[in-house]
Amino acid sequence: MLPIRLAFGQTNPIVGDFAGNLDQIETLCVEAEQKQVDLLIFGELALCGYPLGDLSYRRDLVLKSETALETLLAKSKDFPNLTLLVGYARLATQTNPSQSSKAIAHNSAAAIRNGELLGVYDKQLLPNYDVFDDWRNFVPGTQELNIKVGQTVVAVKICEDIWSEAPFADDQVDLIAVLNGSPFTFEKSSQRRVAAKRFAAGKALAYANLAGGQDELVFDGDSFVVGADGSIRFTAGMQPGLFIAEEGQDGSYSAEEKLFQVLVAGLRDYLAKTKQTRVVLGLSGGIDSALCAALAVEAIGMQNVLGVSMPSRYSSEHSVSDAVALARNLGIELRSVPIEPAHLAFESMLTLSDLAQENLQARLRAVILMGISNSEGRLLLTTGNKSEVAVGYSTIYGDSAGGFAPIKDLLKTDVWRMARYVNKRAATELIPVSSIEKPPSAELRPGQLDQDSLPDYEILDGIIRILVEANGTVQDAIAAGFSTELVHKTDRMIRAAEWKRSQGAIGTKLSGVSFGSGRRVPITTRFD
Amino acid sequence: MLPIRLAFGQTNPIVGDFAGNLDQIETLCVEAEQKQVDLLIFGELALCGYPLGDLSYRRDLVLKSETALETLLAKSKDFPNLTLLVGYARLATQTNPSQSSKAIAHNSAAAIRNGELLGVYDKQLLPNYDVFDDWRNFVPGTQELNIKVGQTVVAVKICEDIWSEAPFADDQVDLIAVLNGSPFTFEKSSQRRVAAKRFAAGKALAYANLAGGQDELVFDGDSFVVGADGSIRFTAGMQPGLFIAEEGQDGSYSAEEKLFQVLVAGLRDYLAKTKQTRVVLGLSGGIDSALCAALAVEAIGMQNVLGVSMPSRYSSEHSVSDAVALARNLGIELRSVPIEPAHLAFESMLTLSDLAQENLQARLRAVILMGISNSEGRLLLTTGNKSEVAVGYSTIYGDSAGGFAPIKDLLKTDVWRMARYVNKRAATELIPVSSIEKPPSAELRPGQLDQDSLPDYEILDGIIRILVEANGTVQDAIAAGFSTELVHKTDRMIRAAEWKRSQGAIGTKLSGVSFGSGRRVPITTRFD
Repeated sequence: MLPIRLAFGQTNPIVGDFAGNLDQIETLCVEAEQKQVDLLIFGELALCGYPLGDLSYRRDLVLKSETALETLLAKSKDFPNLTLLVGYARLATQTNPSQSSKAIAHNSAAAIRNGELLGVYDKQLLPNYDVFDDWRNFVPGTQELNIKVGQTVVAVKICEDIWSEAPFADDQVDLIAVLNGSPFTFEKSSQRRVAAKRFAAGKALAYANLAGGQDELVFDGDSFVVGADGSIRFTAGMQPGLFIAEEGQDGSYSAEEKLFQVLVAGLRDYLAKTKQTRVVLGLSGGIDSALCAALAVEAIGMQNVLGVSMPSRYSSEHSVSDAVALARNLGIELRSVPIEPAHLAFESMLTLSDLAQENLQARLRAVILMGISNSEGRLLLTTGNKSEVAVGYSTIYGDSAGGFAPIKDLLKTDVWRMARYVNKRAATELIPVSSIEKPPSAELRPGQLDQDSLPDYEILDGIIRILVEANGTVQDAIAAGFSTELVHKTDRMIRAAEWKRSQGAIGTKLSGVSFGSGRRVPITTRFD
Repeated sequence: MLPIRLAFGQTNPIVGDFAGNLDQIETLCVEAEQKQVDLLIFGELALCGYPLGDLSYRRDLVLKSETALETLLAKSKDFPNLTLLVGYARLATQTNPSQSSKAIAHNSAAAIRNGELLGVYDKQLLPNYDVFDDWRNFVPGTQELNIKVGQTVVAVKICEDIWSEAPFADDQVDLIAVLNGSPFTFEKSSQRRVAAKRFAAGKALAYANLAGGQDELVFDGDSFVVGADGSIRFTAGMQPGLFIAEEGQDGSYSAEEKLFQVLVAGLRDYLAKTKQTRVVLGLSGGIDSALCAALAVEAIGMQNVLGVSMPSRYSSEHSVSDAVALARNLGIELRSVPIEPAHLAFESMLTLSDLAQENLQARLRAVILMGISNSEGRLLLTTGNKSEVAVGYSTIYGDSAGGFAPIKDLLKTDVWRMARYVNKRAATELIPVSSIEKPPSAELRPGQLDQDSLPDYEILDGIIRILVEANGTVQDAIAAGFSTELVHKTDRMIRAAEWKRSQGAIGTKLSGVSFGSGRRVPITTRFD
């Protein structure tokens, strides 16, 4: 493949945890040296964690990043034959006149071998779309960096650099090494390869990514090598670890397994990195809470997941029996706390409209769940899906309450798909088929069904894909064949829910446009 | 002052409401023509509203902006002697290679006279700090624009352009006209004048701003003229309207009156622009809810404000009597809903830790308030101050529940100051002196005081000013004389509350670093 032995160090850093991040890096360096690796490439800002957000403005953090690099430099004498490329933040000495930001640091990569700093490269193209705030948080670089590893000339680039309009054009270079902090989206794996081939323009290119969850993002590894002929020669898995680029190896996953692993990693790392070990969630007998419970069991183990069934006077028999079956199938504890005493108490205290009476029940459940969360130190999971979050089909401070929303970027039709996949991969009925097949209902009044208030989910999700995920207009959605009335109704619901979403829990980003820091829309608008 | 008669059109646009925004502009143009104004300057993006956020990516919105400009152009024959400068969005035909964004439009200004488009200017320096996402949302311009009004040569600039490092340097120019979308902060009025004088470098400069609230921002008018000698020749008020720049007129306010008016405008316009007319809030007898009630009465009138007293078994006598006195003083309706029935019901349903029992009471109150909100169509105000929001001294889904947080950027020591000012300006005791003078307490357990858990507010606010508002480090705060232990404790509390704040209601920005879209910090960190 290449005259040098190449490897990727997929670490799972925590923002600001320099000691822990350094430790991960050093461990992989030692392993790489033992395995005769020549060049080991880590991810973008692997020493600091990424994204830093406005912590990048803090001089003390940037100085700690530079100190951590010095430590690694000294340590590199322990693996003298290894050349390594690692991402870190360093103080900028010049500002960029076309930039009006508070940035003080570069987003940089250091090339290190045997105690020597071979060179430093500063990221030049700073993305400023979706979740990315690099132009806000960093000063762009201006200098290229080529290093030699044996006889191989290696150019260093960072992430967005290879998405520039102009392809790479230095004839002296044999290999382009790219350090990335590239979060998962449904299309990202293929988009990365298209961008890499286009940019490499006939050179070999090695694409190194981070691994693991950081708030709403999951860095899904997937480091890869493009040959000079444009073919993919190697693909790493998504877990942290050392990946030696062996010709022809392909660590990639099926689309469904990848999505499953991303959902699990997002939840697991949010808990681990915030030092939480246990969760609680309401089990309604419905499909959303069932899928979240299954993901939680995979992420942190059945013994750490508590389900709570909170039947009301309107709950169907199957809502309780499906929750019981789910808990039994997953091996998790199930507690039952009927809400009737509280329901009666509030009815004696307040006179409420019909809709407010529905919201009341959802909020009483949140009071129960947050009571358990606060008493027992369990993170409350909120189980809303993207279709609901989009149109505001939820009760704020009710079912939307929680510290993490595992499936907030998964459309309802994908929830069904993923639930079936959970059973398929376990080769047993973890999620009761009845939960998958029954018509969705919030059960906040007798006989209520989601489809009393919402279009069929197949249609709703199609409209959301256009209006939200493709940034389309109502005209685009109508042109795609959806009914004018439903499109306008959905558009109105999406915009009316902006204020609710602004108070929503974070959850793992899956799509190109998720409801989170990557979508910044005013609450107050009169835009049609 | 100048050989031409100059005026400012301070409009209060709604994002996306082209008809309404155009109507405001045309009305002021007609008035200006009647008053023999030569040059009328409107604010940044006055036709579209500002900030647009990611709506700037929507081609249909940008096309509507261009259409609205065409309408204004045709209409301008009705005021043929007037030259006007107005902000709008227009499609970009070229991208900027150093920019990696999804931007499709320029943030532009059109110069119009008697049906003729004299020229167009595109904002060049696009801010990307604090609440500003212009580099994300717009394509920078490259061309200068000078127009002639009579014999006066006028250069056109937009907002951040005048904060550039290089001062203005075109000797042909007599006057620099600047269209701004500049939100209030405590120091902004003086900062604007410093920047304007420095940039103008011996030229006359006319600074036009928007007026009114837009989500978390309040555009505080304050349009002004700097003479060629660097002196301030004219200052407008903060309300929408036409302001003719008469030599020596000063429409500025005292610091306390300005802050009061900004707090009122933020709340009033959030309600008006989201078509809401009535509010509800819990009245605890404490100072925070008292101040919010007074602001609400000023914003929308006493008849539209409902206070709810929700005493518990731990409530003091004065908490009820102070709420009653406040409601009487303000002339607002007060309802009493004791929480004991619900409290007893939940105690029969759950066994909770001590802290969870405190949180429970706050959440029962939120259930009551949101029940009233949903039933009666009243926006719930959440009354937490910045000191509480900073250290997370609140119950999520409890007292932090609400659609708008009027004083979330006001430190507790400033709450006291503002409460005294409310009484002073009314020349009567609107807010009971007892509410101002008693020691703060959440009253969630017998004899509880805020200072059992928090440092004295004078000290806490001093530390928050350094750690949050000055982006300082713990070392900075210790160096400023605060105790090492209290600084570290406060820093830990601020970071631990990041997840709560991520779900907080929006509220009016007052400081350079407020908790809102201008402060972007990861939830998951291990940064010390």
